[in-house]
Amino acid sequence: MNVEAALTHDPERRRDLAHVGPVELYTPVLEASRDFFVNQMALTEVGRDERSVYLHAWDDYQSWTLRLIEREQAGVGTTFLRAASAGAYERMRAAIEASGQRVDLDDGVRGLGEVTRFADPDGHPMAVYWDVDWYEAGDGDRPSLKNQAAAFPGRGANVRRLDHVNYLTKDVPNTSRFLSEVLGARCTERIVTDEGEDAAIWYSLGNKSYDLVYTEDWTGANGRLHHIAFATDTREDILRAADVMLEAGIHIETGPHKHAIQQTFFLYVWEPGGNRIELCNAGARLILAPDWKTISWTAAERAKGQAWGLKTIDTFHTHGTPLV
Amino acid sequence: MNVEAALTHDPERRRDLAHVGPVELYTPVLEASRDFFVNQMALTEVGRDERSVYLHAWDDYQSWTLRLIEREQAGVGTTFLRAASAGAYERMRAAIEASGQRVDLDDGVRGLGEVTRFADPDGHPMAVYWDVDWYEAGDGDRPSLKNQAAAFPGRGANVRRLDHVNYLTKDVPNTSRFLSEVLGARCTERIVTDEGEDAAIWYSLGNKSYDLVYTEDWTGANGRLHHIAFATDTREDILRAADVMLEAGIHIETGPHKHAIQQTFFLYVWEPGGNRIELCNAGARLILAPDWKTISWTAAERAKGQAWGLKTIDTFHTHGTPLV
Amino acid sequence: MNVEAALTHDPERRRDLAHVGPVELYTPVLEASRDFFVNQMALTEVGRDERSVYLHAWDDYQSWTLRLIEREQAGVGTTFLRAASAGAYERMRAAIEASGQRVDLDDGVRGLGEVTRFADPDGHPMAVYWDVDWYEAGDGDRPSLKNQAAAFPGRGANVRRLDHVNYLTKDVPNTSRFLSEVLGARCTERIVTDEGEDAAIWYSLGNKSYDLVYTEDWTGANGRLHHIAFATDTREDILRAADVMLEAGIHIETGPHKHAIQQTFFLYVWEPGGNRIELCNAGARLILAPDWKTISWTAAERAKGQAWGLKTIDTFHTHGTPLV
Amino acid sequence: MNVEAALTHDPERRRDLAHVGPVELYTPVLEASRDFFVNQMALTEVGRDERSVYLHAWDDYQSWTLRLIEREQAGVGTTFLRAASAGAYERMRAAIEASGQRVDLDDGVRGLGEVTRFADPDGHPMAVYWDVDWYEAGDGDRPSLKNQAAAFPGRGANVRRLDHVNYLTKDVPNTSRFLSEVLGARCTERIVTDEGEDAAIWYSLGNKSYDLVYTEDWTGANGRLHHIAFATDTREDILRAADVMLEAGIHIETGPHKHAIQQTFFLYVWEPGGNRIELCNAGARLILAPDWKTISWTAAERAKGQAWGLKTIDTFHTHGTPLV
Repeated sequence: MNVEAALTHDPERRRDLAHVGPVELYTPVLEASRDFFVNQMALTEVGRDERSVYLHAWDDYQSWTLRLIEREQAGVGTTFLRAASAGAYERMRAAIEASGQRVDLDDGVRGLGEVTRFADPDGHPMAVYWDVDWYEAGDGDRPSLKNQAAAFPGRGANVRRLDHVNYLTKDVPNTSRFLSEVLGARCTERIVTDEGEDAAIWYSLGNKSYDLVYTEDWTGANGRLHHIAFATDTREDILRAADVMLEAGIHIETGPHKHAIQQTFFLYVWEPGGNRIELCNAGARLILAPDWKTISWTAAERAKGQAWGLKTIDTFHTHGTPLV
Repeated sequence: MNVEAALTHDPERRRDLAHVGPVELYTPVLEASRDFFVNQMALTEVGRDERSVYLHAWDDYQSWTLRLIEREQAGVGTTFLRAASAGAYERMRAAIEASGQRVDLDDGVRGLGEVTRFADPDGHPMAVYWDVDWYEAGDGDRPSLKNQAAAFPGRGANVRRLDHVNYLTKDVPNTSRFLSEVLGARCTERIVTDEGEDAAIWYSLGNKSYDLVYTEDWTGANGRLHHIAFATDTREDILRAADVMLEAGIHIETGPHKHAIQQTFFLYVWEPGGNRIELCNAGARLILAPDWKTISWTAAERAKGQAWGLKTIDTFHTHGTPLV
Repeated sequence: MNVEAALTHDPERRRDLAHVGPVELYTPVLEASRDFFVNQMALTEVGRDERSVYLHAWDDYQSWTLRLIEREQAGVGTTFLRAASAGAYERMRAAIEASGQRVDLDDGVRGLGEVTRFADPDGHPMAVYWDVDWYEAGDGDRPSLKNQAAAFPGRGANVRRLDHVNYLTKDVPNTSRFLSEVLGARCTERIVTDEGEDAAIWYSLGNKSYDLVYTEDWTGANGRLHHIAFATDTREDILRAADVMLEAGIHIETGPHKHAIQQTFFLYVWEPGGNRIELCNAGARLILAPDWKTISWTAAERAKGQAWGLKTIDTFHTHGTPLV
Repeated sequence: MNVEAALTHDPERRRDLAHVGPVELYTPVLEASRDFFVNQMALTEVGRDERSVYLHAWDDYQSWTLRLIEREQAGVGTTFLRAASAGAYERMRAAIEASGQRVDLDDGVRGLGEVTRFADPDGHPMAVYWDVDWYEAGDGDRPSLKNQAAAFPGRGANVRRLDHVNYLTKDVPNTSRFLSEVLGARCTERIVTDEGEDAAIWYSLGNKSYDLVYTEDWTGANGRLHHIAFATDTREDILRAADVMLEAGIHIETGPHKHAIQQTFFLYVWEPGGNRIELCNAGARLILAPDWKTISWTAAERAKGQAWGLKTIDTFHTHGTPLV
């Protein structure tokens, strides 16, 4: 396939996906993972069933942000993507079907209307939806300012909302084509090998500089997760979060530091179930240009390390969930 | 007219405007205003002609951000709005013409291709454009990371980019209808009087929670400016900027504090020419919901002051440029 | 008396007081005040008796920081001051006695050895001590780094330690003389009226720019409190604390802003019992000069407002506890 | 010698040193080093002679903070230590002489009165002084608030003041005894080898948790410098400084991160002359206890890395100036 073609974004094309919506995460230690997200990350438990817990980040307009599901192995479940309109939802389903991916309708997802389930080329389960329940704050979390979803928790890392998901994939170019041609996302940055192959791709759905990221999986496995990221309001929140993680005995993998790619200020930790979780802050950086030109990073540029020189930690290239 | 109708956003409608682009500002003291924007705000001078200076903010992808024009009275010149595509540019021109506003083509604007000039219902000069020159850093400001437009200046307030323009208008409801129905912008928040009239409106073009704001002008004048705002990466940048302004003898009108409306962390100063300038930071707050429901603030809610209780300063209701 | 004489600090004189130690606060609503200090300020309850609760700030090396005592009226109880050595304790007792103030020994104070009780000239109860129990963290709050007293709480305002106490006094000059000549403190800044009288004084015991502050009480009452202040590590902590207070319904009196005097970044709230509480951050500002020259602020300088122009709120001049 | 004895601080002993005063730094590239300290660190040039430049940090009450001296090899020149009083100056000279170290009087140092020159046991040149010229701001840097030495520069890293000096020494225990017994400093933290030997020591003169640090020099050389540190008001200043250094092409050795020892938030860079420079922020952490118990870190504890897990970079153990 022609990667460059995939990267050429037609600004006249409709943007039919609005944002990365709620996401599911597998964990072998449901209650420990739940406690991490509630106590250290500052999400709130908003529901549970026999083998899963629903959590909400304080400024997510939707009824839930993250569902933890008990399973033998950690990993990522379904990523839900909100369509930009009712018509966009229909167009998106048609486009996915036309691409040859199988679609399944499901109207049994908590807090969402009908969803169209599918998988990306690497097998990660995904779904598109339009109808959604808005979060309704109760007596315990009614915000003082009515333009936010729930009260500011004042607890742990105080993450505001889900930011992005970073998947591992066996075939970056093929996945890139799917994101660009089928989902209509825009590639804002990428890593290119000396052989000219894409090794990692950052795709954006709106003004955030990325929402969906894929990194090459060297193990040859399918459907694995690199990390899920949550946004904080400031870099100071992330520095404080590092102390919070330290005190709670949560494994800090790397950071705080600033990525060269996308310039995100980051902290990576492993939640008790083993999934890598990022806390991130982009400052005021947004992609406002509708014809943004994809930034390509070479191996030589990557060798300089992160923005301020931090070397990428070994586990960053090897740890994914499920473990293989 | 029916304000509610204007506020009802059709998510199926195309978003044909991408962002607020470069803007012009009038000043009776050109060099003093230029020095303020260069030394305190950290823009860079990138060009000048007989009676004006072009300035660039370090992460603006376009060739210039702000043009200062010498004139007897301070105020706002043309606001340029970038279309989302070549087709969107054509559709936007047709929509403005169809609304009854006069349009004029101009291909002589520095750094832009053909622009379609028009005026909003209150008479503020505006223009839509698609073709644009990208900023090209030179030896003196080449950034170390190639995903930003120019080197981080490390000077004064270090504002990253233009954020929004806040105009005064005699007729808020009529302006609101124009923004919604003609420009296709979305009203994310508004102030409603006890009589049910809109007194101020915040309109968004993308995921930023607002780009164009109109506040009622009690003087009965037309075409006046409330303020132009520039975004910083952190709230700390704004605290530091307050010290920078203090040392430079720049009048601090109010802040730093946090707005209740839109929750922006702000500082308002008057540049030497008399125009009000805001430094603002939104944290990680974005409008991701394509069907965001306009937040309406009543007079009673407004009486509580800003988010943390600061009372709105008198001049905030009276000072606009040009002075009347 | 000769105010100037009081302000002339002899650098050869021994510094016999080390710091402001634990302090007592009266409240008519013990449990509500306790909840404020635990949930919003991030102190920890470490003990209680029939009518009082002992609280500890996470980096206080001593066994408790604040004791809340139930009483009909809010106000300040005893301020404990730690001597710089065993010998200093004896010298301090002798100096207080020699000044004509009555002293009483008490060995029944929780966590302290023998204390010497006395009152300042305005009647505020005080005590000097040397022997002290160090804080011993338990399983629930053992810090990951052994050079801090207890685990970082990651809750609310996360105040690190007590910073200073600001008292109201009927007679500033007389109090100033006592602080300087008897307690051996140094006056680092002061407000002087147009008549040349001291209206407020900031006294320091070490490198912190102030520890004990007295402001003129216009009501003619004795022994009242202006506020007690707790230090945070960053200004960002104080911005976040403002949101925490907003969500908890705690009255924010003024701030966040930066004082012109002493340049402290501040937030003032009223705890549920009515006492004014400050959250403060001094950045890296310290008084390192052993012969620091007292800074005197005139009424004209005060009229400029705080550092960035905020006008002093009326209640700041009138609200003290107990109410009169 | 008995290290424990050296560490036992007698709180009754007078503190005769007030702070680390101005310091001299050698550089083979005088103008490049000067530009680094002016443009990136935000010091101001306040004087120069044939082969040296005097620089001032904006809140240093003294007339100069750092003198850069041209020399073939980088390294540290004289560290000046201010006595706590005129009497303390005399006592300090007597104590140094009594210890067997040679002392020399010199009244020719810019901005200082008579100084008593000596060397520490490892040969680093030092001097004690009492009389000092206070900084007098001029038209270009008069501060808006009169309780700071000079105007806030709003440039680069905006360091407020000198913070500490970290020397390399062949014999840590012997140096420790000199600091404790002769200079009367207090050891607040230290690294102890598995053999029970001190490998690094942090000594404090006042409430700052350290002012003079010595680390074992594995090369066997004498009189070398590990680094000189400057304090910023916030951690955010240090994050921003990292971008400033990145853009200026200054080598970032490690950081930003948080030390486990002393908990300082840090960034280490190499100035153009090769000397390691630290930017540091301690938050509100101070040593208020007059009987603080020295914290001892073992090799096993050190192996955990810095506070949030960053591994100590190899050059941190090998790079010192002069190079050997």
